[in-house]
Amino acid sequence: MTDKQHWLPVTRENIQTAHSMIKPYIYETPVLTSKTLNSLASTPQPAEALIGTPFEGQQPACPKIKFFFKCENFQRIGAFKVRGAFHSILRVIKTKGEEVRKRGVITHSSGNHAQAVALAASTLSIPAYIIMPSISIPSKIEATKGYGGKVVFSGSTSEEREEVMRKVQEETGAILIHPYDHPDTIIGQGTAGLELDTQVNKLVSQNPELSVRETEDGKGCGLDAVITPVGGGGLNSGTATVFADPRADGRKIHVFGAEPSFQGADDARRGLEAGVRIPEVKSLTIADGLRVPLGEIAFSILSDPAKSRGVFSVTEEQIKSAMRLVVERMKIVIEPSAAVPLAVCLYNEEFRRIVEQEGGEAGWNVGVIFSGGNTTIEAMSRLFSAS
Amino acid sequence: MTDKQHWLPVTRENIQTAHSMIKPYIYETPVLTSKTLNSLASTPQPAEALIGTPFEGQQPACPKIKFFFKCENFQRIGAFKVRGAFHSILRVIKTKGEEVRKRGVITHSSGNHAQAVALAASTLSIPAYIIMPSISIPSKIEATKGYGGKVVFSGSTSEEREEVMRKVQEETGAILIHPYDHPDTIIGQGTAGLELDTQVNKLVSQNPELSVRETEDGKGCGLDAVITPVGGGGLNSGTATVFADPRADGRKIHVFGAEPSFQGADDARRGLEAGVRIPEVKSLTIADGLRVPLGEIAFSILSDPAKSRGVFSVTEEQIKSAMRLVVERMKIVIEPSAAVPLAVCLYNEEFRRIVEQEGGEAGWNVGVIFSGGNTTIEAMSRLFSAS
Repeated sequence: MTDKQHWLPVTRENIQTAHSMIKPYIYETPVLTSKTLNSLASTPQPAEALIGTPFEGQQPACPKIKFFFKCENFQRIGAFKVRGAFHSILRVIKTKGEEVRKRGVITHSSGNHAQAVALAASTLSIPAYIIMPSISIPSKIEATKGYGGKVVFSGSTSEEREEVMRKVQEETGAILIHPYDHPDTIIGQGTAGLELDTQVNKLVSQNPELSVRETEDGKGCGLDAVITPVGGGGLNSGTATVFADPRADGRKIHVFGAEPSFQGADDARRGLEAGVRIPEVKSLTIADGLRVPLGEIAFSILSDPAKSRGVFSVTEEQIKSAMRLVVERMKIVIEPSAAVPLAVCLYNEEFRRIVEQEGGEAGWNVGVIFSGGNTTIEAMSRLFSAS
Repeated sequence: MTDKQHWLPVTRENIQTAHSMIKPYIYETPVLTSKTLNSLASTPQPAEALIGTPFEGQQPACPKIKFFFKCENFQRIGAFKVRGAFHSILRVIKTKGEEVRKRGVITHSSGNHAQAVALAASTLSIPAYIIMPSISIPSKIEATKGYGGKVVFSGSTSEEREEVMRKVQEETGAILIHPYDHPDTIIGQGTAGLELDTQVNKLVSQNPELSVRETEDGKGCGLDAVITPVGGGGLNSGTATVFADPRADGRKIHVFGAEPSFQGADDARRGLEAGVRIPEVKSLTIADGLRVPLGEIAFSILSDPAKSRGVFSVTEEQIKSAMRLVVERMKIVIEPSAAVPLAVCLYNEEFRRIVEQEGGEAGWNVGVIFSGGNTTIEAMSRLFSAS
C-alpha cells in the first residue's frame, strides 16, 4: 500500500478521482430492479416472525420500499474487490514509481481479494504473490492462478501465514495490498456507491415508475438510502463517504451497513454502539466474506453519524432466505455475503421501522449493493441442504 | 386459440404486429455478453472429447464465436412463454369478441406455459383454467395460482387429463390455449427473436468491440446466427421466420435449433432429417421443457432450408456443463432447457465446424436465447449431485 505520508483523505472528490483512474479496468455493473422483491419488502412480516425479538407482540412495520440492486456480482472476478485492488496498485505505482514492477505486490487471502489483486497486478504487468493456506479449495487456487497470481502456500494458522509472507517480502520486496484497512482501498471500493448514485438518477429520470415518488418536474426521485455488507468495512465506509453531504436540494441519502449476527460476526454493530472497535472476530457465518473485524479507518468513518446510520444484523436463516429469493426470483447468483443487506431490508424489524417512520406514505428508494457472486452449485447445495 | 379461418400467416410482418400488441405486457429482456464464454467457445475441444463421436481422431474445430445472450430467464413468469400466451389470448379476444371474458381460457401444463396463460389471462381480466396433475410439485401449483390461474386437478395420465379438460370446457366454454402448435403462439414467441435482432444491432453499433468484425463505417456487425431450444418448436420456428429473408446488404442470418439427445428427445432433428415429423417423445431428459414432440406447424416451417439450418443435439452431461458455466461464470440462473443451445455451441462438433468453415478468420456473432430461468436451488442440487 502507499506509505502514510502519501495517504489521501477519504472524500467524495478522491473517490471521483479514483473512479476515473480505475474505469478502464472495471465494468460499470448494471443496476437491476425487481417488482417481486419490492412487493415482499413492502409487506409487513407475519406476527410470528417477531416472536423472541424485542418487537414481539407489536404491530409489524409496514415500510414502502423500491429497490435498486447494484450488481457487483457481475463485476470482473465476480466481486467489487477489484475496485480497491486496482486503485491501491495504481496508487502504489504512482507514489513508489516504476520499481514496483520489479518488486511486485503481495497479499494473503483465499477469497475475492486474492483474485482481485491477482487480476489487477497482472493487468498492470506487476507480479502478485498470493499467500494461500495449502488446504484452500482447489477451485479458488486455480482461479487465483488463472488471473495471473503467483500462489505461495502456507500453513493455515495466521502465524504460519505471516511467516511465509515475511519470507516472500524479504526475497522480493513485494508491497502489501491490504483487503480493507487503508484509505486507497476504501476510496476504491467507494466507487461502487458513486456509480450506483449516478445510475439510479439516470434510471428514474427515464422511468419514474421505478421510484417511490416523483420530483416536481415529473421525473423519478433518486435514492433515499443505500445499504451494503460490512466485513472489514471498506465498501461500507467508502459508500458512506460518497453520500456524506446532503444533495443540492438539502436531501440526505442515508447509508446503512449489514452484518451477520452469528457467533459475534456483528462486531461492527456492537463496536459502533459501544464506541470501541472490536478487533477480533471468530465466526463461521455462512457469509464468509464478512468474517473479518471492522478495520480501524472504517471504524472512524462509520463512527460519524453524518456518514453512517448504523449497522444492522440478521441471522443465518434470514441470509439464506434472502439469497434464495435473489436466485429463484431475480434469477441471478449472489454469494451469501451479498445477501445480507437484502436480508436486513426484509427481516430486520428495527431497520424496517426506520423506513416506515422516515419514508412515510411514499416510502424509500433503497440502493442495495450485491457485493459478489462467487459461489458454486455445490456450495449452494450444501448451504441449503443443511436446513 | 383462434379458429382456422382466422389463422394468420407466420411472417415477420405479423411478428412485428404481435410485438406491438404484447409490448405493454412483457419485459424487453436484456441482452448480455460474456468474455469468458466467448473465450471458451473459441477454444478447440480437447481431442478426448471427440472419442466415440464421428469426429474421433480428427482435428477439433476452432470456431471464433462472440455470444449475445437474450435473457428470457428475466422475462415475466421467468420464461419466454408469456409472449405466445399474451398474443394468443389477445387474438382470441379480437376474433371471438368480448364473450371470451365470460368463457375463459383453458390449458393443461405443469410448467412455464401454465404460468404464462394464468398471468396473461388474469392481466386481461379473463378466467384461466389450468389442468394440472394432482401430483404436481406444490411450488408450481402455488405459482400458477399466484398468477391468478384457477387450478383444476386431474390424474396424471393423458387420458385423465383430457377427460377433466373436456368436462371443464363443457361447463364453461373455455377456449384452449395451445403451448406451441398454433400460428398465434409461434408468432408470439417469434417476438423474442425480433427484439434480439434490434438489441444486438444497437449494442454493436455503440460497442463495436462486442462484435466479431466491424462494418465499413466502423460500427460492429450484427448477428450471423441465432440458436434457440426446440421443444414443441414455437420459439425456434418463430425465430426462424424473423430471420427468413436476407438483410438489405444480402447477408443471411442463420437460425439453428438445439435439442437434448437423451432417450430420443432429439425428435425434431431426426424428423427433419427423415422428412417425416415424429409425433411422440418419451424422454425424461433433464431439459424438461423439451420433452414434447415438434408441432406440425413448426415442422413445416423448419423444413424450409431458407428458414432453418437444422437442429443439433447434445448429451445430458453437456447440458449440465453449459448450465454450470452460466450459473457460476455469468452469475445468472437458467433452467436446463435454456442451457441446451449454449451446449451445442460449446460441445457439438458438427455445429462448431459449420461456424469454423462459414465464419472463417473473423468468426460469427451468435445470438443465444436463454429461454427460461425457472428452477430452484434444490432442483439444481439434485441435478448436479447425480453426477
